[in-house]
Amino acid sequence: MVDRDRIERRLQGLWEIELGPGGGANRLAYSSAEAQAMRLVAAWAAEHGLDPGIDRFGNLWALPESWNGPLVTGGSHVDTVPDGGRYDGALGTVLGLELAAALGNETTGGGARAAVMICAAEEAPRFGAGTVGSRQLVGTLTEEETTQLRDAEGISIAEARREHLERLVDLPRVRPPLDRWRAHSEVHVAQRRELRDIGVVTTVASPRRLQITVTGESGHTGEVSMADRRDALTGAAEIVLAIERAARDEPPQTVATTGTLSVAPGAVSVIPATARLAIDMRATDAGSLDRLEHQIRRASADICARRGLEIDTELTRAGNPVELDRGMVSAALAAAQRLPVSAHRTWSGGGHDPQHLNALAPSLLLFVPLHGGESHTPQEGASLDEIAHAAAIVEYVLRDLDA
Amino acid sequence: MVDRDRIERRLQGLWEIELGPGGGANRLAYSSAEAQAMRLVAAWAAEHGLDPGIDRFGNLWALPESWNGPLVTGGSHVDTVPDGGRYDGALGTVLGLELAAALGNETTGGGARAAVMICAAEEAPRFGAGTVGSRQLVGTLTEEETTQLRDAEGISIAEARREHLERLVDLPRVRPPLDRWRAHSEVHVAQRRELRDIGVVTTVASPRRLQITVTGESGHTGEVSMADRRDALTGAAEIVLAIERAARDEPPQTVATTGTLSVAPGAVSVIPATARLAIDMRATDAGSLDRLEHQIRRASADICARRGLEIDTELTRAGNPVELDRGMVSAALAAAQRLPVSAHRTWSGGGHDPQHLNALAPSLLLFVPLHGGESHTPQEGASLDEIAHAAAIVEYVLRDLDA
Repeated sequence: MVDRDRIERRLQGLWEIELGPGGGANRLAYSSAEAQAMRLVAAWAAEHGLDPGIDRFGNLWALPESWNGPLVTGGSHVDTVPDGGRYDGALGTVLGLELAAALGNETTGGGARAAVMICAAEEAPRFGAGTVGSRQLVGTLTEEETTQLRDAEGISIAEARREHLERLVDLPRVRPPLDRWRAHSEVHVAQRRELRDIGVVTTVASPRRLQITVTGESGHTGEVSMADRRDALTGAAEIVLAIERAARDEPPQTVATTGTLSVAPGAVSVIPATARLAIDMRATDAGSLDRLEHQIRRASADICARRGLEIDTELTRAGNPVELDRGMVSAALAAAQRLPVSAHRTWSGGGHDPQHLNALAPSLLLFVPLHGGESHTPQEGASLDEIAHAAAIVEYVLRDLDA
Repeated sequence: MVDRDRIERRLQGLWEIELGPGGGANRLAYSSAEAQAMRLVAAWAAEHGLDPGIDRFGNLWALPESWNGPLVTGGSHVDTVPDGGRYDGALGTVLGLELAAALGNETTGGGARAAVMICAAEEAPRFGAGTVGSRQLVGTLTEEETTQLRDAEGISIAEARREHLERLVDLPRVRPPLDRWRAHSEVHVAQRRELRDIGVVTTVASPRRLQITVTGESGHTGEVSMADRRDALTGAAEIVLAIERAARDEPPQTVATTGTLSVAPGAVSVIPATARLAIDMRATDAGSLDRLEHQIRRASADICARRGLEIDTELTRAGNPVELDRGMVSAALAAAQRLPVSAHRTWSGGGHDPQHLNALAPSLLLFVPLHGGESHTPQEGASLDEIAHAAAIVEYVLRDLDA
């Protein structure tokens, strides 16, 4: 079983590295705080007989000394959003170390030994991106994209990554042991309040995004009658409501959001000529996501045609729901039943590294219920009992893993 | 009758003072280009035996030499929007000079002589304001407001006015001759394309403005189901459409526009917590304007109540339709009939100096049809025949004016 005191001590150690102005954990992607957290985790891993090293994307691997056989990993990420919580990323990291401590020198049913794998730059709003370390490892975030995506100061992912690697130059550089990687596991704090027991994630709803630009005609607000207008904003308002309606017509796991809307010229005495909307669509079912996108495109085009407006619709991110490994899900539910611990299938609306890593090794993602404040805030909370239950499920699943 | 060549020459003279990047007249409120235009007009006025001078608000008065009797004035403004047209303001200015030329030393029916009055800073989007010179003269734009309203560089109206007065320090400073001011007239290019003959303006629809702030709850776009959201933007979108509907339910002269809409936090992966709308409402009938405002307030409150959103509604400008002098309107229509020239009653949806000056002297506002491009653009056009007709009506009305 896990060492609860050690978990709390290590969560506190990560928490104290840097606090933001709002009093929350502040370890931004590829920042010196993230590097400092990785060095701390590397030292803890060494206590459990693991050799830490950094791959060329800045991900931390801690592998059993003198072992060239199969591996199962636990881990998460150590970076945070600005002023983030105590558990997001940190919890899965600390439990990855607990898994290694629990398995020690033992091998799993499939002859694998436990290792720790910490993905870099999972939270990267800094670059308008996310899961940056795992997507580079899988190859779905290209080198070209890492030079194009830049933060507010103009620093690209590639430049920030180089700095990150320089900060950690004292740790050995490792080649990712992809050929002997048998399974990965991550425990994460839930980001939905509804989840009331351990969640075994079957599907991650990767965002699909549209940008819609509506163009009408500007004019003097006092001198163009309502009948003669081609107002881009009233058209955009209809589209915002059509997006909401389209999502409501789908299952509850399907959502659509207009997160930004900008108007030009944007003066109180001028009829809007242009309105631009950024739309985020997510679903756990690809059919539902396709229907949603189709309905949004069709309704927007109809609205603009009826109002005499021009419309330009651009797919800015082509996400699809990702199904995690079914065998791991079944094994986790079976383990929960035997322990016994209350656990149910659930889905994730937010992105997590396992949705990408699953392409390299069957990946398990467990959620522990969210207590206290919201996720991504300093008030984010979790219960040690539920944390211990999740850790027990992971250990059970990986010990039993077949070759 | 008017001198068509002189009109064209003078319009060209004003046009050439400063052109903007879009190739239009660029004489911004209280800029050196406006001052230069006023100096040009002062020189032209002197050619017709008038003494030019500047009042403390920067308005230009050109009064008959050695005359302390009653006055009738013609004029407009010489400032423009950025990249504005050839006729807006300039036309009424040049026709004010033509009126003085036509009446010369003669007195009207009421024993008045003709003078020229040019209002400063009529177009002041620079300060988010308008009719700045005339409203100061009337006293409805207070000294306090002139120190508060600032342009993008932080320069207040009061500071810009001081600069303007310094630029024109070579012209005599005059006290506005309010006690002997019997009537004012302005010819302006129409800003609505519908107007197909001379328009005699009965009413000016002064804008009434609201700012509505809708507050909901932010959240992760992937982790809050549609049913659990309090999305400020979808509420604001319903309000935008309710505003449009409310205006469409009123007579065609009644309009309402949401000109700006801003969203916070404003990220594609975050549910909007706040949306802020700026609404411009105009009508020629006070009852219609009141109904419109009431309906917008009621519908917005209902929408927010239904969606669990908070709403804050602020009246940011308390405009009411202004009726111009009825006697002047009747006299203009009668004059048109006798000339004969085709003219009809109309209204103005945009603000003009006569709506304020009418409180000091009965004011006539005539529109000549808009040809070519839109108003407030370099393509703005007008016909010399129609200009001459409008000038003839003004001359007729003022000559016949009773004491």
